[in-house]
Amino acid sequence: MVLGFGVFMAEALMSYQAPLLPWLTRQGRKTVHWVLHSLALLCIALGLLAAYKSHSLKLPVPIPNWYSPHSFLGLTTMALLAVQFVVAASAYLYPGASLAFRLALGPLHKFSGKAVWVMGLAAIATGLQEKTSFLQTGKGLKGDQLYSGIVRLPAVAMVLLALLGLVVLYH
Amino acid sequence: MVLGFGVFMAEALMSYQAPLLPWLTRQGRKTVHWVLHSLALLCIALGLLAAYKSHSLKLPVPIPNWYSPHSFLGLTTMALLAVQFVVAASAYLYPGASLAFRLALGPLHKFSGKAVWVMGLAAIATGLQEKTSFLQTGKGLKGDQLYSGIVRLPAVAMVLLALLGLVVLYH
Ligand code: HEM
Ligand code: HEM
Ligand code: HEM
Ligand code: HEM
Ligand SMILES: O=C1O[C@@H]([C@@H](O)CO)C(O)=C1O
Repeated sequence: MVLGFGVFMAEALMSYQAPLLPWLTRQGRKTVHWVLHSLALLCIALGLLAAYKSHSLKLPVPIPNWYSPHSFLGLTTMALLAVQFVVAASAYLYPGASLAFRLALGPLHKFSGKAVWVMGLAAIATGLQEKTSFLQTGKGLKGDQLYSGIVRLPAVAMVLLALLGLVVLYH
Repeated sequence: MVLGFGVFMAEALMSYQAPLLPWLTRQGRKTVHWVLHSLALLCIALGLLAAYKSHSLKLPVPIPNWYSPHSFLGLTTMALLAVQFVVAASAYLYPGASLAFRLALGPLHKFSGKAVWVMGLAAIATGLQEKTSFLQTGKGLKGDQLYSGIVRLPAVAMVLLALLGLVVLYH
């Protein structure tokens, strides 16, 4: 999940304006953009599968699926991401739409692309919070223990996540 | 918090392009914009005070402050919000900056304004998740109980929150 949204998609979003390889032509940047998005999608799909299996295969009793606020946000994000990907791939890649349609789609594709990426970051944020709360209450952490690495690490990760969002969207 | 970010700031962000009172002049819209932001700031400051007091006044033992990922994200957001407000108020309102400076500030003010608002929504999302996890583990909810209103309500609220973000930013 973090690899998908945090690394591949972040780089994919910057591949037009701030490419890692600045000598690439527009066609090259476009290829980087969709290949990275495809890798991100793969990571995210595997992440979902892992989350699902970790619930339904749990012994002795399976844990129910999709109950938490985090999972609702995550599922909504993935649904929108799938739409974004299918629409973009069929308009810009294969079979390809008319130039007029591409031009009209551009601004919407950029807005919805940024929006779904930010939703992914928010899903990560709620996932980190959920995991932290589980650890905290599971281990019954109190007082000074709340300032230990296990709680502080995700708290700092949260701030870095916000920074990542700001930097990528402003780039 | 929800009133501040979810209602007042949402409306403040829309007050230029999609005002509730469409006959307002640009000056009127500007006044609505900063008055709503001021109200939002007030709500948010009171919210912070309440969160702080609920920890430090807790009996028999105070709860530590600012340990969770949620609180780190919340504090970062509030710091940026304060900067945004002070810069905007002094440039656009009092004492007011030169026209050249205002024009240069415009795009940055819009970007950082949207960014800090989205961070506020993300803070709400993690807050909802934290509260839900506390309730869940505190009451030891399992199996079908995880689908009760107490867990489902925040899960649905999460999706509505994402929708609010999309609608306001796309307006
Ligand atoms: C650091 C990142 C993340 C962490 C620590 C994390 C943590 C967790 C945890 C603890 C669960 C099990 C509890 C529950 O069902 O709520 C879970 C489930 C889930 N997560 Fe995440 N998550 C992260 C990122 C994401 C992202 C980015 C998405 C989607 C965009 C996502 C989607 C889901 C979904 C859909 C479930 C429910 C699976 C099921 O119930 O079968 N997660 N996650
Ligand atoms: C699935 C996730 C995707 C997301 C989140 C996404 C997001 C974005 C964003 C944010 C931009 C603006 C970049 C900038 O201006 O710096 C962009 C541009 C673009 N994307 Fe995607 N994209 C996705 C998939 C795809 C796919 C599969 C293609 C197929 C080739 C594609 C083709 C393009 C093109 C052609 C542009 C430039 C549009 C223009 O300049 O009018 N995107 N994308
Ligand atoms: C529905 C919305 C919200 C809920 C349910 C919620 C819930 C909570 C809970 C349960 C705590 C105590 C546990 C902890 O310290 O992490 C808390 C603390 C805190 N919240 Fe929220 N919150 C919400 C919105 C926000 C927002 C929008 C912000 C800021 C932008 C924020 C900032 C904080 C801060 C800074 C603390 C730490 C206070 C301290 O430790 O003294 N919260 N919140
Ligand atoms: C503190 C939180 C604030 C946030 C989050 C914020 C956010 C925003 C956003 C998103 C816009 C773009 C609206 C649009 O294009 O539809 C905007 C425009 C504007 N805001 Fe703010 N604002 C804040 C405070 C203020 C204050 C205190 C003033 C003082 C009067 C102010 C003055 C303006 C002006 C003059 C514009 C129009 C800028 C232009 O068109 O170049 N803002 N604001
Ligand atoms: O597939 C593409 O369509 C156009 C489109 O983006 C126009 O808005 C473009 O430059 C591509 O690479």
